[in-house]
Amino acid sequence: MTEGARGSRLRGYTVPRTPGGRASLVPRPPWHYVGDFMVVDYWADPEACRALLPEGVEPHPDAGRCAAIFVEWQSCSEGGEELLDPARSQYREFFLVVNGLLDGEEVTTCPFIWVDQDFALARGWIQGFPKKLGEVWMTRTFGLDVTADPGRGPGARYGATCSARGRLLAEMTLTVEGTSDEGPRHNAPPLVNVRHFPRLEAGRHDEPAVHELVRAKSRDRASSEVLEGSATLKLHAAPGEEHDGLAPVRVGRGYRFTFGYTVDDLETVRELS
Amino acid sequence: MTEGARGSRLRGYTVPRTPGGRASLVPRPPWHYVGDFMVVDYWADPEACRALLPEGVEPHPDAGRCAAIFVEWQSCSEGGEELLDPARSQYREFFLVVNGLLDGEEVTTCPFIWVDQDFALARGWIQGFPKKLGEVWMTRTFGLDVTADPGRGPGARYGATCSARGRLLAEMTLTVEGTSDEGPRHNAPPLVNVRHFPRLEAGRHDEPAVHELVRAKSRDRASSEVLEGSATLKLHAAPGEEHDGLAPVRVGRGYRFTFGYTVDDLETVRELS
Amino acid sequence: MTEGARGSRLRGYTVPRTPGGRASLVPRPPWHYVGDFMVVDYWADPEACRALLPEGVEPHPDAGRCAAIFVEWQSCSEGGEELLDPARSQYREFFLVVNGLLDGEEVTTCPFIWVDQDFALARGWIQGFPKKLGEVWMTRTFGLDVTADPGRGPGARYGATCSARGRLLAEMTLTVEGTSDEGPRHNAPPLVNVRHFPRLEAGRHDEPAVHELVRAKSRDRASSEVLEGSATLKLHAAPGEEHDGLAPVRVGRGYRFTFGYTVDDLETVRELS
Amino acid sequence: MTEGARGSRLRGYTVPRTPGGRASLVPRPPWHYVGDFMVVDYWADPEACRALLPEGVEPHPDAGRCAAIFVEWQSCSEGGEELLDPARSQYREFFLVVNGLLDGEEVTTCPFIWVDQDFALARGWIQGFPKKLGEVWMTRTFGLDVTADPGRGPGARYGATCSARGRLLAEMTLTVEGTSDEGPRHNAPPLVNVRHFPRLEAGRHDEPAVHELVRAKSRDRASSEVLEGSATLKLHAAPGEEHDGLAPVRVGRGYRFTFGYTVDDLETVRELS
Repeated sequence: MTEGARGSRLRGYTVPRTPGGRASLVPRPPWHYVGDFMVVDYWADPEACRALLPEGVEPHPDAGRCAAIFVEWQSCSEGGEELLDPARSQYREFFLVVNGLLDGEEVTTCPFIWVDQDFALARGWIQGFPKKLGEVWMTRTFGLDVTADPGRGPGARYGATCSARGRLLAEMTLTVEGTSDEGPRHNAPPLVNVRHFPRLEAGRHDEPAVHELVRAKSRDRASSEVLEGSATLKLHAAPGEEHDGLAPVRVGRGYRFTFGYTVDDLETVRELS
Repeated sequence: MTEGARGSRLRGYTVPRTPGGRASLVPRPPWHYVGDFMVVDYWADPEACRALLPEGVEPHPDAGRCAAIFVEWQSCSEGGEELLDPARSQYREFFLVVNGLLDGEEVTTCPFIWVDQDFALARGWIQGFPKKLGEVWMTRTFGLDVTADPGRGPGARYGATCSARGRLLAEMTLTVEGTSDEGPRHNAPPLVNVRHFPRLEAGRHDEPAVHELVRAKSRDRASSEVLEGSATLKLHAAPGEEHDGLAPVRVGRGYRFTFGYTVDDLETVRELS
Repeated sequence: MTEGARGSRLRGYTVPRTPGGRASLVPRPPWHYVGDFMVVDYWADPEACRALLPEGVEPHPDAGRCAAIFVEWQSCSEGGEELLDPARSQYREFFLVVNGLLDGEEVTTCPFIWVDQDFALARGWIQGFPKKLGEVWMTRTFGLDVTADPGRGPGARYGATCSARGRLLAEMTLTVEGTSDEGPRHNAPPLVNVRHFPRLEAGRHDEPAVHELVRAKSRDRASSEVLEGSATLKLHAAPGEEHDGLAPVRVGRGYRFTFGYTVDDLETVRELS
Repeated sequence: MTEGARGSRLRGYTVPRTPGGRASLVPRPPWHYVGDFMVVDYWADPEACRALLPEGVEPHPDAGRCAAIFVEWQSCSEGGEELLDPARSQYREFFLVVNGLLDGEEVTTCPFIWVDQDFALARGWIQGFPKKLGEVWMTRTFGLDVTADPGRGPGARYGATCSARGRLLAEMTLTVEGTSDEGPRHNAPPLVNVRHFPRLEAGRHDEPAVHELVRAKSRDRASSEVLEGSATLKLHAAPGEEHDGLAPVRVGRGYRFTFGYTVDDLETVRELS
């Protein structure tokens, strides 16, 4: 397209695309992230897990392996301008991952995820995360030895909840026992998601314009020490939701840590039918 | 794809796609809508309008023709189940349209739009509306002759505001003078938008996976009587926004009415480069 | 207090009190209201009702008589300035009333109520309504004969929900059968509430600064035609809530109508111990 | 009141008062707090400060001394049950304080304050803080050396905003230069506020039921190291607000730290006329 062509003036990684390119809901990559995590490794009904795997992903041999993850994120694009306007850089998230095998390799896939900001929702769709809006809360520690701060020592208790449309969807608690050498295992494998964008033309509602299996890529990963302990997890049914099919049949360990990374790439594994 | 194929079990018009298909953020079309509208016909800086037209749309001969529209919507999919759960059927919206010509025919295009629900945001992206989240308020009438009800008679006053991320983006007022035979003119022509969905692969951030000029289609349209009167409109600058480039240089008439229609189709005009 | 005294400059019916008096969270009375109502007459466990009656109010002879009420309100103070800024005039509300006898006269009292705006919360406390914040949704009718509008005819269905802190607290549905001559009966008697404002001085936490039984007064009441039909009502338990003790044991009729009135007075019945 | 008296069954430090006492919007004291602070010491127009002082508080000799404070709080009552349900323990706050003299002693008073949770709003009114609802955002640090984390070193930049009803009310930035020995000075003196609760009886709207000058009391105070640096502060006008009268004429230093304390007492200085 030549410089003078009509439309060449519209810039922006996403809509709205404008002459200045500053209105784009999601700024162009790279996207830098840092966040506080609460994770619970658990097992759901194996058949429910199998039914949620994307086309081409096989069930994991440790049938029903899942993780539930709460995060309080802060993120920005290159230059970090959003960090000074935290309404544009902070969001909270809850998601579930199911373990599987892709071409024999361990992977995770994310069938359900909620966030509380529009830019995070759209950025998720671009990466293949099936995001909806929800309200997410996590107990925090502030590093002071006072009653309102659970602290980081043995016995410290943390809670987290996710709701959407006024319905409680998930509750998690963690009781710290000590530090962990390994950290959570069920969300450790590489993430494989499905990018999907529908068509609206009559007769083609079942032929998405984008439908592809993708593998997440990231760089510049950094992590804090990991706290570990006993955990609880409940998933609740709600109208217009199906995540409760992944309710835990067995709950493993819970974890709390801080993690950061950068995303500016994605690998397309294959087009889906 | 045969019934037994892996992945065939995942159903849903949008993500999240699930075995039951009930978790899809946007239910499959048709989508039925009804809403209360406040509209102001106005003119913005012609160069600002021209710079926002999609590739292939020419400036309108009445240079700078725009409209600003507030709507309180209620919508549902076939069967109407969402109507009993209004958290899943109601949303509020503010948008701007710019007039242009496509192949010599009058059209409108929507460069900026805000809604307050996730399903409406995603449904908008599918139709080519560049939606973000915002907070939208409109004065209502309840049909009682009491002080808190502006009523529908001459002198009745209505206000509306849109904000996002804690910044005021738009303010409108209408003072009713009487009924209108024609209704608003600047948002009457057919709507032409750009469907756009980015890529994340490194090196391809400027090659969207979907980038197409589309023409909205609708059916079963119904409208109430239209109130008309004098109007005011202000658009305010905000970080990460560019809609204020369409601030009014001249304000026409304001309108208030109720409108309903059904959408289950879209015409792709052409692929964009 | 003489005009020149320090502090005389601070004006405002509520805090924040300022030189201009314009920052008061609640403008001074009168307060003009209009709203769309959904009401269900029902009966709860008589002992649960009795336990919630204010000191001095006797149980109603029709044991367990209650009503559940959803309202979408628009309100303003004298002059009506807020009507043009609907973020300061509109709010949504859900409340329960229990019937009783005060000095032998039928009354209602409101033990639980949620609204979605701060000015409504504070205005409620001043009137003796024990308001908390919640999210409230009600199906609307727009007066058009389209699929997304339930209309007002027999078979029209309406739903409403209230949630707080991400937990669903109440669900109501109404299926219209026709118009009603009388309207709801369980919320018809005069309203008697308890104004209560605590002390914080050590040793006096159980001696509220304000603790008085009050009878609501209103004027300039107006009502629309009333729709009536069959109804459902569910109240759900949630942490930090006790309204579910008033869950229905028998559900009566449901109603939908519009109502307006003005409040600028209150009768103190007696000081409570 | 004897145990058997009617009404003795209603328990709760605030409304709603119930048989179980668990529905009270604010649990009974003590209240334990911990929070991350951003503070800017500054000076406003001396006459604007004087006009906002409560009756009985004299202007500070350092005319116009004010501070602006953002806080992300976590709080709980005795037993700490709310900490596991962070929707009931976390809130964000922005407030302004003006310095003055009470009986010759340096004090601060809070004329304007916004929070984002109902329990915090009501708890504030009980303490004499004139709270309204708003949306508050503060940049966070997570303790990792990654791009999305500003860190704590020289040059680290933090931002904060407060808005209400869709209007931006305040913006603050801090650029860290190093640690501070003293911390902020303008919000250090004891806090003196006005508890105020109106009457609604006709003819008595100007005779509040509660109107008293109070001095805050706290215990078990703890603080982190304090970061200090250069700062900016802007206060913006908005309908129904007057805080912008305290806009800075000179901006001092900015600070960032963590602070915790416990409140279960309050001293009444005097009844106001």
